Amino acid sequence: MSNDNNRSRRKFIQQTAIAGAGFVLARPLQIFALTNNKTVMSKNIKSRGYAGKDVAGQMVPWNFERRPVGDNDVLIEIKYSGICHSDIHTIKGHWGQQKYPQVAGHEIAGIITAVGKNVTKFKVGDQAGVGCMVNSCMQCDSCKSGEEHHCETGGMVGTYGTPEASSPSGITQGGYSNNIVVTEHFAIKIPKNIELKYAAPLLCAGITTYSPMMKVNFKKGDKIGVIGIGGLGHMAVKLAVFKGAEVYAFTTSPSKIKDIKGFGAKEAIVIKSAEDLKPYKGKLDFMISTVPYAYEMSPYIDCVKKYGYFTQVGQPINGELTINNFNMIFNRVNFNGSLIGGIPETQEVMDYCAENKIYPQIEIINASQINDAWDKVVNKEARYRYVIDASTF
Amino acid sequence: MSNDNNRSRRKFIQQTAIAGAGFVLARPLQIFALTNNKTVMSKNIKSRGYAGKDVAGQMVPWNFERRPVGDNDVLIEIKYSGICHSDIHTIKGHWGQQKYPQVAGHEIAGIITAVGKNVTKFKVGDQAGVGCMVNSCMQCDSCKSGEEHHCETGGMVGTYGTPEASSPSGITQGGYSNNIVVTEHFAIKIPKNIELKYAAPLLCAGITTYSPMMKVNFKKGDKIGVIGIGGLGHMAVKLAVFKGAEVYAFTTSPSKIKDIKGFGAKEAIVIKSAEDLKPYKGKLDFMISTVPYAYEMSPYIDCVKKYGYFTQVGQPINGELTINNFNMIFNRVNFNGSLIGGIPETQEVMDYCAENKIYPQIEIINASQINDAWDKVVNKEARYRYVIDASTF
Ligand SMILES: [Zn+2]
Ligand SMILES: [Zn+2]
Ligand SMILES: [Zn+2]
Ligand SMILES: [Zn+2]
Repeated sequence: MSNDNNRSRRKFIQQTAIAGAGFVLARPLQIFALTNNKTVMSKNIKSRGYAGKDVAGQMVPWNFERRPVGDNDVLIEIKYSGICHSDIHTIKGHWGQQKYPQVAGHEIAGIITAVGKNVTKFKVGDQAGVGCMVNSCMQCDSCKSGEEHHCETGGMVGTYGTPEASSPSGITQGGYSNNIVVTEHFAIKIPKNIELKYAAPLLCAGITTYSPMMKVNFKKGDKIGVIGIGGLGHMAVKLAVFKGAEVYAFTTSPSKIKDIKGFGAKEAIVIKSAEDLKPYKGKLDFMISTVPYAYEMSPYIDCVKKYGYFTQVGQPINGELTINNFNMIFNRVNFNGSLIGGIPETQEVMDYCAENKIYPQIEIINASQINDAWDKVVNKEARYRYVIDASTF
Repeated sequence: MSNDNNRSRRKFIQQTAIAGAGFVLARPLQIFALTNNKTVMSKNIKSRGYAGKDVAGQMVPWNFERRPVGDNDVLIEIKYSGICHSDIHTIKGHWGQQKYPQVAGHEIAGIITAVGKNVTKFKVGDQAGVGCMVNSCMQCDSCKSGEEHHCETGGMVGTYGTPEASSPSGITQGGYSNNIVVTEHFAIKIPKNIELKYAAPLLCAGITTYSPMMKVNFKKGDKIGVIGIGGLGHMAVKLAVFKGAEVYAFTTSPSKIKDIKGFGAKEAIVIKSAEDLKPYKGKLDFMISTVPYAYEMSPYIDCVKKYGYFTQVGQPINGELTINNFNMIFNRVNFNGSLIGGIPETQEVMDYCAENKIYPQIEIINASQINDAWDKVVNKEARYRYVIDASTF
């Protein structure tokens, strides 16, 4: 969406806005009611998207409803929705039993089309995004300190598949759909100077790799290893390169070498066996692994300097990874995991990428191509993020 | 051995010492030669001990030879030798294929009975110990900085089972025997104010738990968890308590509760299932696990505060442990391993325990009881360290 389009849209919205109402709706066909001078949403929002109906994980068109736009909610008309490997793992039950139908998708970018009366962060017409969570208690220490993903009360409410009383389908439903209702706090402002299609993948692939890399506080010239150069990995490379690191990208796909060099990596290393990792033993200041399957971690972990950190952000089936403590006692590396990032940090990576024109490398697909895209993601054929054009739902 | 005995022994030794010879031997029956006014050891040292003959791991009496006492070597008459779970794992091939016969034992305490001509650290009659290593390159950065166990050249030479050209049997042979020849640098001074039987277990159980606990730099009152209260674990409890920590000891043996409280732990917690760990979730500043088998680590790791450290020193079969990354992304704990400690730090824990009377709880056994003791160690019946009276070899 160009800036011109944005401006004319906003103008239209302002003209159609109801003066004095706390709730502003861009599309009169969606339903709300005025009672006692307050806006009360009386009806659910109709939505259409692609859902998995069972553990087989075939995504099929589905019409469903979302909760009415509450006082603190925004309604986003989704324009683009990224495909994350987590979508596949979740819907196929790799991470635990699921409720169906379930709409996947947690890299959501669109336009605000309605705001609840208490909403201050957005106005109709703004670009907005939703990442991996849509709610949390907002009362606990973690929530108060911008670590909503680590909510201590009941945990964060995931963008899809989490039981939620307010959701007509009983669980949250994600971004493979034409709209979403979300508490304003959990919507991310997408600056005007980044296209929505590029913004979408930042909401999971971006923040998931950005957050742990920022935590290790690396210095310019530090050597950072990235394992698995897919949706997350290619963002890790780009972000680390832009932040001044010397990036070593480890992939099992020789066909990605040229692209990886294009992302700015110092070296792109094709790994066929543990032998190929030996030259890097003890050489890297930090390593991040985006590999979403169990793999032989030890020879990778060995590449980190003693007392350095190795962060696993890819989540294998059932979360299970084998760690070899013989390696650990000798390499003296600290292994940890990292989960997305809080709302302030997600906003930070969004703003940072917009300002510095750090864009994911994407391929736009139609809704009907989702299943095919999933197969390609699993087969490591994605280059590097599939993004669904939401107008095709 | 009392101080009085020490004194009379030293007096005897001084009387029998050969003036001007660089090499001093307390027992004339052991053989050396004088050539060109220099002492040259011409013959191997005869030794008797208990060795495993094959992977079945039955320990049987064995007469063997050690290398002659070289210019930088000391000969130690072993008085006590601790039994470590690692002895069992190694001899039974749990950590890789072994050469046999192999004498286990790396908690060795005794009396210096001969010193090579360049030896300055010891004199005949001194109390001395040997832990888990007997050599390293001494040239690399790690060796030069007192981290000989992380020798970068060819790795440390383990006290038993490591191929070694100078050893008549082709591999190093450990402490289940009546003597040992070792480069002086790798012998630890055992102060007079600690009995050898108490000193022996400090050389593995002591240093292995001391080193990682010192690395985390905990403050008085910090909460430290210890998992597995056997030979290593009970030393971890005692050391942490003495250093001012509030210690939480996790055991699967209800019969150990009283002892553990006696060691000074704030709480002794019997774990029957992961449920029992829930009250401790996110509560501990640091945790050390001495469990030498694969176990369900995640609910233990969850007990550490976010950004805290969990150190696994117990080495399971093949080193393999399963880590659940779902837990890791939420608990934000750093998992690492730790291998014994360097020579300076081993000396430090020895001196610290001697000065502060921190003694392992031991049970003295005869050589003929080794196999029985091994079974008891595996069955968690040790209370808490078996120490072999080396006069029974
Ligand atoms: Zn994702
Ligand atoms: Zn919360
Ligand atoms: Zn040991
Ligand atoms: Zn060395």
